[in-house]
Amino acid sequence: MSAPARMIGVGVGPGDPELMTLKAIRALREADVVAHFAKAGNASHARAIAAGHLKPGVIELALLYPVTTELPKHAAAYCGRIDAFYRDCAVAVAAHLDARRSVAVICEGDPLFYGSYMHLHVRLAARYPTEVIAGVTGMSGCWSAIGTPIAQGDDVFTVLPGTLPEAELARRLADADAAVVMKLGRNLPKVRRALDRAGRLDRALYVERATMADAVAMRLADKSDDDAPYFAIVLVPGWRRA
Amino acid sequence: MSAPARMIGVGVGPGDPELMTLKAIRALREADVVAHFAKAGNASHARAIAAGHLKPGVIELALLYPVTTELPKHAAAYCGRIDAFYRDCAVAVAAHLDARRSVAVICEGDPLFYGSYMHLHVRLAARYPTEVIAGVTGMSGCWSAIGTPIAQGDDVFTVLPGTLPEAELARRLADADAAVVMKLGRNLPKVRRALDRAGRLDRALYVERATMADAVAMRLADKSDDDAPYFAIVLVPGWRRA
Repeated sequence: MSAPARMIGVGVGPGDPELMTLKAIRALREADVVAHFAKAGNASHARAIAAGHLKPGVIELALLYPVTTELPKHAAAYCGRIDAFYRDCAVAVAAHLDARRSVAVICEGDPLFYGSYMHLHVRLAARYPTEVIAGVTGMSGCWSAIGTPIAQGDDVFTVLPGTLPEAELARRLADADAAVVMKLGRNLPKVRRALDRAGRLDRALYVERATMADAVAMRLADKSDDDAPYFAIVLVPGWRRA
Repeated sequence: MSAPARMIGVGVGPGDPELMTLKAIRALREADVVAHFAKAGNASHARAIAAGHLKPGVIELALLYPVTTELPKHAAAYCGRIDAFYRDCAVAVAAHLDARRSVAVICEGDPLFYGSYMHLHVRLAARYPTEVIAGVTGMSGCWSAIGTPIAQGDDVFTVLPGTLPEAELARRLADADAAVVMKLGRNLPKVRRALDRAGRLDRALYVERATMADAVAMRLADKSDDDAPYFAIVLVPGWRRA
């Protein structure tokens, strides 16, 4: 075996293991090493989704974030620690590739759409063969689970992080036909005010763990501000039948 | 068998049959009828993607658009004909449901994200049990096939139809961190001018049939204006490594 080993970013979809693609499952069957990101002390969501397809005895590489939401995103301490973390992850993956072991990096949702995998990709793609297997995004899982058409025809569709300032959120929500707001958590009260200022609160839907057994979905107007997880999202459907 | 029959919107992904999900494949195995949209005289893309998973002898229902791009989108003649078409499609699907046959409506990409399926969903979901199976979108297929991270962290991501006026495209492109422009075709020269006005032309990538064997991908600056298909897209990646 003389071909260089590959790194494969494998999207495993939004949560329901049945929303994995045939290609993702084949990649797990063929890989020598399966790598996954998780917060230190927690289990990896991606690993839980893919668990039924891991080969017995496959080498696992857990990439454990040293920090996630404890420090403000733009703090120098956060940026320095997270950059060192991604550098160490790339070194750990490269060691397997240099030993001619193929590495599947499993990712919730779609690897190149707001995913941690891309931090490995930009560090390693110039030096090793890479492949990316697209996955169903978390947001598609949400609007599908609740049967809500999100965008159609000439709609402008926008994804906004809930971390933006309230005035900017309100301006952008008013300017889009359809929108998704991610990273809710403690940003929910601000997101609610921005939706109200943009005249979109009555259309907004709140969704948690949409493709899991314990899914929560309701009008945002009916949801309290105090207990939204970070990975909950708000959908603002653009299209209504004429 | 006394349970009412269901309509299922089945996302079959962007083109590569391996990007179908396990859930989509199960839906095709269980459905009595498989329905698909296509332009009259053309084969359905969704059917071609799913062909390997259709049961021998399954009932097929071809829903053939009477018009697609021949008439301007906002012309009264277009709107009238297309509305009558979707009404007729809903009647045809309902006839199978009334006969207690489950109907899988297969859709390229993701059914509720700019898909024709939603025209059936809004007409039938109040009267019949429905389910929607999320799929990998065409745009995810594109950025994954060319290994290009599209959005990260606090990026604002926007999907724009190439049909928008040039000034509006330019304004929105300048205001987004990452963008996808769909519906290129004869809109490509205008989209190129808008990207240039927004200062985004140097970052823009042109992609056609990304997950197929005859994929085309290049810098938009290197692509001529004269032969872009309607379903080609432009990607403007937002995230570059700091």
